[in-house]
Amino acid sequence: MSKKGKLYVFTGPSGTGKGTILGRVLQQDAKLFLSVSATTRTPREGETHGEHYYFLDKQTFEDKIKNSEFLEYAQYVGNYYGTLEQPVNEQIEQGNDVVLEIEVQGAMQIHEKRPDAVMIFVAPPSMQELERRLVGRGTEQTDKIAARMETAKEELKQADKFDYIIVNDDLDCAIADLLAVFRAERCRVQKN
Amino acid sequence: MSKKGKLYVFTGPSGTGKGTILGRVLQQDAKLFLSVSATTRTPREGETHGEHYYFLDKQTFEDKIKNSEFLEYAQYVGNYYGTLEQPVNEQIEQGNDVVLEIEVQGAMQIHEKRPDAVMIFVAPPSMQELERRLVGRGTEQTDKIAARMETAKEELKQADKFDYIIVNDDLDCAIADLLAVFRAERCRVQKN
Repeated sequence: MSKKGKLYVFTGPSGTGKGTILGRVLQQDAKLFLSVSATTRTPREGETHGEHYYFLDKQTFEDKIKNSEFLEYAQYVGNYYGTLEQPVNEQIEQGNDVVLEIEVQGAMQIHEKRPDAVMIFVAPPSMQELERRLVGRGTEQTDKIAARMETAKEELKQADKFDYIIVNDDLDCAIADLLAVFRAERCRVQKN
Repeated sequence: MSKKGKLYVFTGPSGTGKGTILGRVLQQDAKLFLSVSATTRTPREGETHGEHYYFLDKQTFEDKIKNSEFLEYAQYVGNYYGTLEQPVNEQIEQGNDVVLEIEVQGAMQIHEKRPDAVMIFVAPPSMQELERRLVGRGTEQTDKIAARMETAKEELKQADKFDYIIVNDDLDCAIADLLAVFRAERCRVQKN
């Protein structure tokens, strides 16, 4: 019955539609906030510091790594990406729920560091359907799709370490499932 | 990801509106079934065996107590009331969720016997509001209301043994909360 918010980790293989689901849920749930990531990449046109990303230079980012200020971080195409713990904690203290949309590997880092985090995994209805969706995007070459399918297979093995699995078979159902998870968690009794 | 249903225990002090909330949720959730109680009291006009109650004679009821066939039972105004475990288990095996609407004491009996049961507690927004509602019913004498308030105070102490607490401040919110609990639980990963 505490007034503090909760930390949520939302992840799943590429192609499961997690961005779409979470975007729609964020529009409908006024108590839920998306965590802002930190990055060393250059801001794109229209991107604002503190809103789209915390834009940090490489030295600052690496200092913060040394000071254990990140919940998780990774390097991707020569740049750092990560989640700073302090802004997340501030939101939670204010009674808001904070959700991180991250890759499965980063999610497992947070699971270790923050056992209080509620872990949500989005799964495709089947591997066949996931492949169909990745091909359907028409943006990736065959070898890249094969690599993504391999990654997805590995990631799906982690699914039972999560608290919730949302199968994205029908988009509206998946959105309703995720909305229900946040609503139900607010009624959940905190146990030690 | 198992296809089995779950057992839910739904309880709370008298006057919290739990019957109203659950009734509306049962109308909207096609996978949820209300458990049918067994009783030794005489059927009333229009009541059907197996639908409203399992009507048992006293000897049969007491034999079933001896055989540990009840999840919980109690005596009330000279009659037995209880929940038989077998029909509940059959429903769950078929993939349906079964909910028991029972008194707090019976709920705690089930909590001991069936640690797999998801425990839901309905709480009034405050003791003042609970008293206002009990008086508002206009059906009970002042001394009975005082007794109910005492019982409610004791029952509320059990609330943190439950998995979920639904505060019935606004009826529509409480209904949405309970619907969310059942929906979210279907996405929940079974842990040992």
